[in-house]
Amino acid sequence: MASRTSSPLLHPDESEFDLFAVMSALTDPVRLNIVLQLSAGSGKGCGTFGLPIAKSALSRHFRVLREAGVIRQRDEGTLRVNTLRREEMDRRFPGLLDLVLQEAPSRS
Amino acid sequence: MASRTSSPLLHPDESEFDLFAVMSALTDPVRLNIVLQLSAGSGKGCGTFGLPIAKSALSRHFRVLREAGVIRQRDEGTLRVNTLRREEMDRRFPGLLDLVLQEAPSRS
Repeated sequence: MASRTSSPLLHPDESEFDLFAVMSALTDPVRLNIVLQLSAGSGKGCGTFGLPIAKSALSRHFRVLREAGVIRQRDEGTLRVNTLRREEMDRRFPGLLDLVLQEAPSRS
Repeated sequence: MASRTSSPLLHPDESEFDLFAVMSALTDPVRLNIVLQLSAGSGKGCGTFGLPIAKSALSRHFRVLREAGVIRQRDEGTLRVNTLRREEMDRRFPGLLDLVLQEAPSRS
């Protein structure tokens, strides 16, 4: 899914996380579904989430999550792998991801 | 500010609070400012927040907060008084309002 010619994958430092950008990122049902799936295990390739939306739209959702600091993306060969930045989120905003993951199943 | 002929003030029960509606309500800077001001004391009339926006827009912001369960509104004579539903929010979503109030001053 990732274009190898695209700009580098920028990630905010933990100290730069913005609670309101994070909450805004987490209020979208598609992004919530992505976070829920990532919480269940280790990294997942962008094409493995089984979401019925266009690749371009999905890419935007991953970007919003990455720019808010919720996920980390890295390229492994032709695969773009996503992981949840769980520990950093938990340190900066204790309890937030727990709440979101607890309430998400009723929504996504 | 309140119209005495408008529909009744509906408030969700604590059990009906939706985390994502609450987070969405709290990501707007005007609503964040309202919540921050309400956290400092007891009830405040709608016209006392000193926000430089039109009454109609301000009314919509109060409604979003009320419908998400973040604030309670009641009419006292000609005044519509707003209070934070702090205890109920804290019970349903422990730590969320604390986080928001802690991070809000840098945003509003």
